[in-house]
Amino acid sequence: MHADRLAGVGVSPGAGYGPAHRLVRDIPEPPRAARHGGDARAELRRAEQALERVAADLAARGDRAGGEARDVLTAQAMMARDPDLAARVAELIEQGVAASRAVFDAFTGYRELLAAAGGYLAARVADVDDIRDRAVAALEGLALPGLPADPAEPYVLVARDLAPADTVLLDPATVVAFVTEEGGPTSHTAILARALGVPAVVGCAGASAIPPGTPLLVDGSSGVVRLSPHEDEVARAVRVAEQNTALLAAVSGAGATADGHVVPLLANVGGPADIAPALAAGAEGVGLFRTEFLFLDRVDPPTWREQQDAYREVFEAFSGSRVIVRVLDAGADKPLDFLPPPAPEPNPALGERGVRMFRHFPEVLAAQLEALARAAKGTSARVQVMAPMVATAEEAAWFGEACRAAGLPSVGVMIEIPAAALRAADIAAVTDFFSIGTNDLTQYTLAADREAGALAGLQDPWHPAVLDLVALTAAAAMGSGRDCGVCGEAAADPALACVFVGLGVTSLSMAAAALPRVRAALARHTVDDCRRAAAAARAAGTASAARTAARAELPALADLSL
Amino acid sequence: MHADRLAGVGVSPGAGYGPAHRLVRDIPEPPRAARHGGDARAELRRAEQALERVAADLAARGDRAGGEARDVLTAQAMMARDPDLAARVAELIEQGVAASRAVFDAFTGYRELLAAAGGYLAARVADVDDIRDRAVAALEGLALPGLPADPAEPYVLVARDLAPADTVLLDPATVVAFVTEEGGPTSHTAILARALGVPAVVGCAGASAIPPGTPLLVDGSSGVVRLSPHEDEVARAVRVAEQNTALLAAVSGAGATADGHVVPLLANVGGPADIAPALAAGAEGVGLFRTEFLFLDRVDPPTWREQQDAYREVFEAFSGSRVIVRVLDAGADKPLDFLPPPAPEPNPALGERGVRMFRHFPEVLAAQLEALARAAKGTSARVQVMAPMVATAEEAAWFGEACRAAGLPSVGVMIEIPAAALRAADIAAVTDFFSIGTNDLTQYTLAADREAGALAGLQDPWHPAVLDLVALTAAAAMGSGRDCGVCGEAAADPALACVFVGLGVTSLSMAAAALPRVRAALARHTVDDCRRAAAAARAAGTASAARTAARAELPALADLSL
Repeated sequence: MHADRLAGVGVSPGAGYGPAHRLVRDIPEPPRAARHGGDARAELRRAEQALERVAADLAARGDRAGGEARDVLTAQAMMARDPDLAARVAELIEQGVAASRAVFDAFTGYRELLAAAGGYLAARVADVDDIRDRAVAALEGLALPGLPADPAEPYVLVARDLAPADTVLLDPATVVAFVTEEGGPTSHTAILARALGVPAVVGCAGASAIPPGTPLLVDGSSGVVRLSPHEDEVARAVRVAEQNTALLAAVSGAGATADGHVVPLLANVGGPADIAPALAAGAEGVGLFRTEFLFLDRVDPPTWREQQDAYREVFEAFSGSRVIVRVLDAGADKPLDFLPPPAPEPNPALGERGVRMFRHFPEVLAAQLEALARAAKGTSARVQVMAPMVATAEEAAWFGEACRAAGLPSVGVMIEIPAAALRAADIAAVTDFFSIGTNDLTQYTLAADREAGALAGLQDPWHPAVLDLVALTAAAAMGSGRDCGVCGEAAADPALACVFVGLGVTSLSMAAAALPRVRAALARHTVDDCRRAAAAARAAGTASAARTAARAELPALADLSL
Repeated sequence: MHADRLAGVGVSPGAGYGPAHRLVRDIPEPPRAARHGGDARAELRRAEQALERVAADLAARGDRAGGEARDVLTAQAMMARDPDLAARVAELIEQGVAASRAVFDAFTGYRELLAAAGGYLAARVADVDDIRDRAVAALEGLALPGLPADPAEPYVLVARDLAPADTVLLDPATVVAFVTEEGGPTSHTAILARALGVPAVVGCAGASAIPPGTPLLVDGSSGVVRLSPHEDEVARAVRVAEQNTALLAAVSGAGATADGHVVPLLANVGGPADIAPALAAGAEGVGLFRTEFLFLDRVDPPTWREQQDAYREVFEAFSGSRVIVRVLDAGADKPLDFLPPPAPEPNPALGERGVRMFRHFPEVLAAQLEALARAAKGTSARVQVMAPMVATAEEAAWFGEACRAAGLPSVGVMIEIPAAALRAADIAAVTDFFSIGTNDLTQYTLAADREAGALAGLQDPWHPAVLDLVALTAAAAMGSGRDCGVCGEAAADPALACVFVGLGVTSLSMAAAALPRVRAALARHTVDDCRRAAAAARAAGTASAARTAARAELPALADLSL
């Protein structure tokens, strides 16, 4: 007898109801003895075409998805095009092995090497398996196990875990929710789900044993998954969801609290694909324009001319509005061939990242700043530039000089390292604005890797220590008359967004899908409500107590089912 | 014409004068075609004996050295005993390859694999090379390039970088200083140098080009290395050093400021070998008893009975005094076979370490606490127990319950994560004392890996953000009537030790060699001097400005050449 409810971590709010559809990867292993007919050349061409098709498909999904998904999928596409792997496949085919088996063996060998290496490389095993399965399926004419092509009704997607490529596939019109057995709230998968606006529960023990077809009611806020719920319960949830949608849709316009305290609501943009959703959701500008999409999947950095065209596209879409551009954040989980770290790094997240990398490659920064300055000239967007991974006032001053020398007058920094938050007043003296990156700030403040699922309990931006640092940063900004935004994931949490406003944050930037929720939450509370919620959260001793205490001061959230 | 002075980072204070002796590793590669006489069995035995000799030698050096050196060398000894490497050596010898070449090839292959893997593994390449050189030297009857066995006069050791095994070899009686081209102030090598009390300059560009025999005057405080200095200059430096030694020797007894503010000065102890130096230097107890030495190089954890005997040895040496025991700090750079992390970790320093590991292996903690409780019963030492890597009040409470259930009444936590420092008041409510670990606290606060030499500029405990966190922690402790010590490397810096006292820290624990300096520095300043120095440092905007500002308030440091 299966339990009638499972509990996980709600990572993308909203309710979804539909039959369970289980995504199982079971591409069969090609037979060990599979040989080709003798034409090694033709067989090699088949293998190459299959791998290229997989690579192109991954890259195209990335382009369609935009944002962080683009970065993740582009990196995966590069792996499918790896010349060493292609050489190994060719070698096996020369020996008479069939293309599908050659691909299987080459990728499996690579997988074992990665798994044995441990660390960051081992964490990529799932990506390699995904490419292998896709290529084998293409060669054998198999459909990828996957999503129903034309489902009779909207369904709940259930999986052990979702590869980035799977998540991008989700169509919010047919997939009403998703539930995974693994994953944490700050995993890339959870971030992508929120960007799509699909309710999601991760880290849900027992999920992969749910029988296919079981009707599921998923609450992406509480993390509860009800199996075969009574129809009254579903009707109630649907009614609440409908009311909620209507309530959210009723709020529009510029971000502000109920008593008119203005809080510009901006969008996070990772590439041109993110422009339309941001405009549709009423973004008042761009609070975080990630520029990595231009740099991934390349042997050499893009020229300033290439960059200029890409930047101009975003600036023109937001003409008249603020666009905050973050310069290239290379290193750590986004290594680039042309920006190698100077030495092997035991802990890339504590290594040569962001602004630190530019100290070694100032010409890459110079080219990017030149492109930004030229692109900015042609538009009426208010272009502001900021640096990632700034720890000290010296770094901020160095970056500011480089920007001003390039003709970019408004210079800020990401506040995502505890030292920068603690000494925000020193940094404010040499910069024009702050943007708090809550994901990394939480990671460093709690010393808990955001990609380590087992430490999910520690990776909570509600931890009062993180709120203390946000408060210190906002106070320092206010004392110097600077803007202080939040562009991390946490800004998309309606309750936390109110708390940030209560702490003195002056703008919020998030994935477009989250804008209506946050706009509605602010519109239903006064700035004093927000301040009381912030004070209550900081007075708490733990993350969960802080969340509970803040929500008690924000009663309209419950009315909005937020 | 060589420059007459080089500048690096002074990491171990004092002055040293003597001829340069360059440590160069140039064990020649055994010829590719080297074959053995035909008796593969005998040859294999030779190889096995050589590797075992290397392993035993490394382990013995570790035992003699104690402390952190023991951990590092024990891990290296395990690598020399790696069964996979032994199997590869055997395979090559079976094929007729001579033992020295077989060892060379097997270790070189392993080295390449590690280098390709990147990350933490790649950082171990130097350790593998060291083992290979030692084993090849043993098989070929070569002396290891190294230190003069019986030098005519004291000398300055110059090297590109020093392997842990090299550093342990240093005899303070014959090696008067050391100078390395690479390495940062928080590298293990720098830590070991300070523990030996040998003046040292690291990160000294141009050091490896110093001609052998060149007379060098090394200032381990300023980081300046003078080549062929004038004899007046040497005489002056020697006179200052002698006066300094006399001044330091004149101060003895319990730690206190000039106006009688008591600051117990405790020793960091990493095993039985550290007891005698600590007692000789007048340690008033143990502020950090690291227990890793019992757990390294083992397939299973030690039983409580084994542990009890080891703990008792330290407790009896310090009977009547305080002994603060840190429970096993496994994970990150100290992985243990029987405590594997639950998943591959892209950033071990942000992963399953310290108290986090015990949530997965409570039985290991239970056995250690039982051993400590039993060992404590037999002695008059005041045994206190503390947990590493505590981020939240929940973790502190969990650990406190486990300790009290085992009959250990005095429970503390290391404050080495920014969240713990920020919310020290919450943690004080569930613990009896704090001990601030400045190395890790600096690493996380600045998000800069302490093992990454290129980020040495960021790994500075003088950064005002770190001082802010120390101040917050000390204030929270004072508000709850708790003790708050510092047991990190920074406590061994006489100026920083005064600043910590000014911030409200109540005890200082350090390597035994640093105790006389810190004792003298405190004895020459009042607690108000310390407070003024602390305020000046926190008012500064950068680490270097903080250091300068604090020293200006501590005039007697210059008199003491500290």
